[in-house]
Amino acid sequence: MRLIALYRQPPDPQAFDKAYFGTHLPLMGKVPGLQASVVSKFTRTVMGEGFYMMADMAFPDEGTLKQAMRSPEMAAAGDNLATVAEGLVTLMFAEDPVPAG
Amino acid sequence: MRLIALYRQPPDPQAFDKAYFGTHLPLMGKVPGLQASVVSKFTRTVMGEGFYMMADMAFPDEGTLKQAMRSPEMAAAGDNLATVAEGLVTLMFAEDPVPAG
Repeated sequence: MRLIALYRQPPDPQAFDKAYFGTHLPLMGKVPGLQASVVSKFTRTVMGEGFYMMADMAFPDEGTLKQAMRSPEMAAAGDNLATVAEGLVTLMFAEDPVPAG
Repeated sequence: MRLIALYRQPPDPQAFDKAYFGTHLPLMGKVPGLQASVVSKFTRTVMGEGFYMMADMAFPDEGTLKQAMRSPEMAAAGDNLATVAEGLVTLMFAEDPVPAG
């Protein structure tokens, strides 16, 4: 099970990157059960409303992810996110990916 | 380099899944240079505007992806997409993911 964060274009990408990689990711790294975080930047929007960046955070199963969402470490990361990316974030649970051809 | 498609909630998910997996993915499978497609369904939106599904399509490099975007096979897949998911899609280029802790 994964936690996916999609970030819309920040007004100041340089300040966003500094806060995200310097402060937010280290806080997320303390969240219990998190196995790996993978961050991808979007470089071009071909169709529809685009985003700036995606973070794909893997947990071993849904129960662990749900516990993580209630942890004090996630609360701290969430509080930080409100200062780093207020109004920019979509946060979703995602099933483990299915290779599809 | 990857091509990422984000799909908003379709009005009829069962019909969407049938068209997507039965028709669209096989058409995408013919696109030159596509190495792998990985599809993930979102199961819960915690914050912000949610999506239904994501397709993560890997290409060896940006040049191959750009060529693929101009290919007749991609044009066929795009025409099909207009019937499967009109108004539901965000399509973006993304850098290869960076493991981030």
